[in-house]
Amino acid sequence: MNIALLQHSFKGNKKESIDFTLKMITKASKNGADLIALQELHTNKYFCQCEDVKYFKYAKEFEKEVNIFSEAAKYNNVVLVSSLFEQRAKGLYHNTAVVFDKDGSIAGKYRKMHIPDDPSFYEKFYFTPGDNDFTPIKTSIGKLGVLICWDQWYPEAARLMALGGADILIYPTAIGYDLNDTKDEQKRQLDAWLGVQRGHAIANGIFVVGINRCGIEYEEKNKSKINFWGNSFIFGPQGEIIKLASENKDEIIKAKIDLKRIEKVRNIWPFLRDRRIEYYNKITKRYID
Amino acid sequence: MNIALLQHSFKGNKKESIDFTLKMITKASKNGADLIALQELHTNKYFCQCEDVKYFKYAKEFEKEVNIFSEAAKYNNVVLVSSLFEQRAKGLYHNTAVVFDKDGSIAGKYRKMHIPDDPSFYEKFYFTPGDNDFTPIKTSIGKLGVLICWDQWYPEAARLMALGGADILIYPTAIGYDLNDTKDEQKRQLDAWLGVQRGHAIANGIFVVGINRCGIEYEEKNKSKINFWGNSFIFGPQGEIIKLASENKDEIIKAKIDLKRIEKVRNIWPFLRDRRIEYYNKITKRYID
Repeated sequence: MNIALLQHSFKGNKKESIDFTLKMITKASKNGADLIALQELHTNKYFCQCEDVKYFKYAKEFEKEVNIFSEAAKYNNVVLVSSLFEQRAKGLYHNTAVVFDKDGSIAGKYRKMHIPDDPSFYEKFYFTPGDNDFTPIKTSIGKLGVLICWDQWYPEAARLMALGGADILIYPTAIGYDLNDTKDEQKRQLDAWLGVQRGHAIANGIFVVGINRCGIEYEEKNKSKINFWGNSFIFGPQGEIIKLASENKDEIIKAKIDLKRIEKVRNIWPFLRDRRIEYYNKITKRYID
Repeated sequence: MNIALLQHSFKGNKKESIDFTLKMITKASKNGADLIALQELHTNKYFCQCEDVKYFKYAKEFEKEVNIFSEAAKYNNVVLVSSLFEQRAKGLYHNTAVVFDKDGSIAGKYRKMHIPDDPSFYEKFYFTPGDNDFTPIKTSIGKLGVLICWDQWYPEAARLMALGGADILIYPTAIGYDLNDTKDEQKRQLDAWLGVQRGHAIANGIFVVGINRCGIEYEEKNKSKINFWGNSFIFGPQGEIIKLASENKDEIIKAKIDLKRIEKVRNIWPFLRDRRIEYYNKITKRYID
């Protein structure tokens, strides 16, 4: 399977960003990609830097954007993982990945389950946490364990997708440096971000990819900015680094991966064989007091 | 808290290995260690390279060894994590960590829950899987999430210990290179071993240490050998590498760690806040068919 991840900065407005993404999709598909994955909320700036009801209007365009990327998947004959702002009902919004199969049909949706909230990432204001299970999305090229950004820190989400038969975990993401942090702290955070997702690859014997923004985005309202740290990645089922993107460049990173490797790795490291499932029930506790 | 991990090769027989370990314990305590952790099954060679009933006799000495290390903890005024072969009943054996407090009392035991079995690591022949919960052991210096070797690949075990209030995960270990593997494969395996445990540190905002053997051990019966890869480590709650031992030297690796850092890290990365516990129940399934 040939996969391509499209990492890029925001292009100033929705139209320019969508046009840029569509061109990248066509370029990646011409280079043989079967699966193309886009970064989190790729049609917009990362608007969660402040809390403002004006941004809910972006979610009104969900259906229109679904149609655009459905057409793109069909036109380019690729499986496409998009990440969009969804209005589900009046006053009810989700951070939603929509997966299209090669014929443009919707293979499945995933509504972000773990919602962060910390300075400059005020997502709990905008997004209701998803209310579906962690279920991989079946496509013509394999079962995709689509998760989104903050989900990436949760071993439970990765494990449930693996138990559901996912061949690859796919994390559209928007994460960056806090420019007030020291360089050491910035490096620790980037290393931790890569490290925890490498851990999921290893613990589950599965491919894991992350697609992150790059570039600096400003929010005038509260005078904040984020330097999105790029570093989109492709990890193999032993956690091996197959590809790692730059920190700050628009780029397509791609790799040919062999899904048969999952079984080879799991046969020598049969972690699934030895899980002590009868002793795991307290995972569903908030805390064991 | 000052912690010290004692990494060493097997010293040819039980008596020499125990004497060597006792000397290292005294040395580490004189250097200020509050907590000393020993490698897996440190009083013996790694006898699981073959299946032979003759090795069950090692477990007959469990009580005697418990007394030796209880005395060592008391004499040196340290919390001590030992790893011993336990006979629980006639024909019933465990791979057991015994934790002593500074007064020599037994603070708690942990019987290895996940038991591996692959060529040269025939542990399922020797050890019955533990039948207790994943519960941290309370000591005078903190709550220790003691786990053993193969447990290290399981995010569930790490998470349950963290939810139980562990300040630090401690993995006595015996893992090494298969000398028939290519150098590339050997490196991937070592990196994966370090990587999955770094992942637990990050996902749980917790300290994680591993204490591994070093040196080559031979098993005449089936003409096998393992090159134990050392690399004992101390990771901080962002997965930062605080200390990493050599591949092949007897050594004490030590660090002063500040348990207050756990709260600082968790306050900026509040993963525990956002767990979707109502959607995790299928973790207790073998597989989601």
